[in-house]
Amino acid sequence: MPVGTLGSVKGVSQDVLEELGVEILLSNTYHLFLRPGVETVRRMGGLHRFMSWDRAILTDSGGFQVFSLNDLRKVTEEGVAFRSHLDGSPHFLTPEKAMEIQIGLGADIIMAFDECTEYPADAARARDSMELTLRWAARCRNYFDEHKGEVPWSSCQPSAVSRQGKQVPRSAQDDNLGVAHAQTQSLFGIVQGGMDAGLRRESALRTIDLGFPGYAIGGLSVGEPREVTRDIVLSTLEHLPSDQPRYLMGVGTPEEIAQYARAGVDMMDCVLPTRAARHGLLFTSEGKVSIKQARYAQDESALDPACECRVCLRYSRAYLRHLYASNELLAQVLNTVHNLHFYLATMRAVRAWIRAGHAAS
Amino acid sequence: MPVGTLGSVKGVSQDVLEELGVEILLSNTYHLFLRPGVETVRRMGGLHRFMSWDRAILTDSGGFQVFSLNDLRKVTEEGVAFRSHLDGSPHFLTPEKAMEIQIGLGADIIMAFDECTEYPADAARARDSMELTLRWAARCRNYFDEHKGEVPWSSCQPSAVSRQGKQVPRSAQDDNLGVAHAQTQSLFGIVQGGMDAGLRRESALRTIDLGFPGYAIGGLSVGEPREVTRDIVLSTLEHLPSDQPRYLMGVGTPEEIAQYARAGVDMMDCVLPTRAARHGLLFTSEGKVSIKQARYAQDESALDPACECRVCLRYSRAYLRHLYASNELLAQVLNTVHNLHFYLATMRAVRAWIRAGHAAS
Repeated sequence: MPVGTLGSVKGVSQDVLEELGVEILLSNTYHLFLRPGVETVRRMGGLHRFMSWDRAILTDSGGFQVFSLNDLRKVTEEGVAFRSHLDGSPHFLTPEKAMEIQIGLGADIIMAFDECTEYPADAARARDSMELTLRWAARCRNYFDEHKGEVPWSSCQPSAVSRQGKQVPRSAQDDNLGVAHAQTQSLFGIVQGGMDAGLRRESALRTIDLGFPGYAIGGLSVGEPREVTRDIVLSTLEHLPSDQPRYLMGVGTPEEIAQYARAGVDMMDCVLPTRAARHGLLFTSEGKVSIKQARYAQDESALDPACECRVCLRYSRAYLRHLYASNELLAQVLNTVHNLHFYLATMRAVRAWIRAGHAAS
Repeated sequence: MPVGTLGSVKGVSQDVLEELGVEILLSNTYHLFLRPGVETVRRMGGLHRFMSWDRAILTDSGGFQVFSLNDLRKVTEEGVAFRSHLDGSPHFLTPEKAMEIQIGLGADIIMAFDECTEYPADAARARDSMELTLRWAARCRNYFDEHKGEVPWSSCQPSAVSRQGKQVPRSAQDDNLGVAHAQTQSLFGIVQGGMDAGLRRESALRTIDLGFPGYAIGGLSVGEPREVTRDIVLSTLEHLPSDQPRYLMGVGTPEEIAQYARAGVDMMDCVLPTRAARHGLLFTSEGKVSIKQARYAQDESALDPACECRVCLRYSRAYLRHLYASNELLAQVLNTVHNLHFYLATMRAVRAWIRAGHAAS
């Protein structure tokens, strides 16, 4: 899932995302809560209609940004007090409030409000944090069950209708996840438990007991070594139902997403392809390319000769290097398009690998 | 002509420019001379091939930027000494050097190196400056006649071939100006003469005597009142051959370009549509819209209900306002696409008006 923090994948218009084959976007509840605010999005008919995106959207719970962008947050049983990173204004987020916001935004998949356990955390702290996430998950579940009918598009499905009232053709791929444009949203649970495989197992089983249509593995990519990430992912996956979506949050490099998808992960999100692109770091079939380097100044070859994205088919490394070195807006646009294509092509290759009989565990 | 200062219309990829119906771009010799440098562009086969743009390109002479970006420039009979606005490095631009650079860049239309007379200028200063521009025009003409065969694509027309060596379909519109992809470039002369109609007439007649395939009116939009601009344009136009392109440099608002086109001007360039877009100022059939205003925060209507650009067909004012207020890259991209469409639609309307028998003077 490409990341469209504020209801936009930075620099890339929605028609280009469609052309790239993006089936689902992630958008950040925390950021949308601050700008433009949930009431604006709700009145505009929900995020799909607001951003004119008819394919699937997932919103995170806001918890991760509250933890990562706010040094002065205060966690209690009730919820988290924090200040806006924009203007310092005080806010209080609870499981119920996180549900209310996400229902108002109206994404297809919404996430339970969890505590992202910091790294490192000792055994007692990891257990306490896991237990808090479980209690919050139950509260999210209860609130969602009572209020899920309040999603802006619950009765009229405006998300499938364009601004002009014309019917927008639905992508055949929209239903792959089985959740797009149903009459209500799908609430996913999140497994925590720090870097302790036993706690992760317990968190998984007790979250499954609560009963969700999909499960995420959270609390990783928070500074731990890559091998630890891998061990926790693989051991946690075993405890999650393989016939429901399994979502690994905040991962990763092209190699990692391929590795985890082959291991059975169904969904991932990461800012890496888009953020790296804006810094001139491009992923190619021959490895990473830092396009700012002077060695590319007169290189007429394509960025990635094996790539079929519209950037590689049309422009030379020399031109991309010139755009980046001259701080041209188009550099960020084209670099992002290429990196997204590379990530999506990576996942398409994994799908082909699975279809060829290499069944994921 | 949209302005693509550094070989890119800021934020808009070439395929979108094609879709918008852009037939010719202006690129700035001064900026390309500094970055990436003429030798790089020449080795890449010229600007068309470098930026993968098969339609027409015009480069200015560099003179206007030398005058507007350099407070410490020094003008002599030989040329202009100036320092780079980027790193302060010293450079010396002459009529011959401006030709050499523009031949190396390889645009379809190139401009004589002129002195843009400052405003206000007294009668003696305006005449001296006009005489200098005439002497420089003759030197440009001589250098160009001797060296025009050195254009990178003179023998092989690589500009019509894509990076991969595949033939790129030529737009039927390419030949409208009668100059695209000829075997040599077309050098246009520039009329100066300050705000004195008599000097302008003399400059026009003596520039015509030198003989160019097209003529520009330069030295306007330099701070003079709009009525003065109009009077000088209209009086100068009378002295320029109506069967050759007449190019008004650096103009203007949508109203102005329509007015001048109806009066007989064939070509104009201005940064206004693209620069204003990046500052949230949008041109519509109902007047200017400053999209940053809070009044648009929940406005579901199209930016311009009468507009058929892909921005107005897909997105609401509320979304565009959110993108701009959140400093999202996509704001600059979408705003630019709309403003360019508005300008191009304005010119299409003038063409229809002319075809309907309202012959331009």
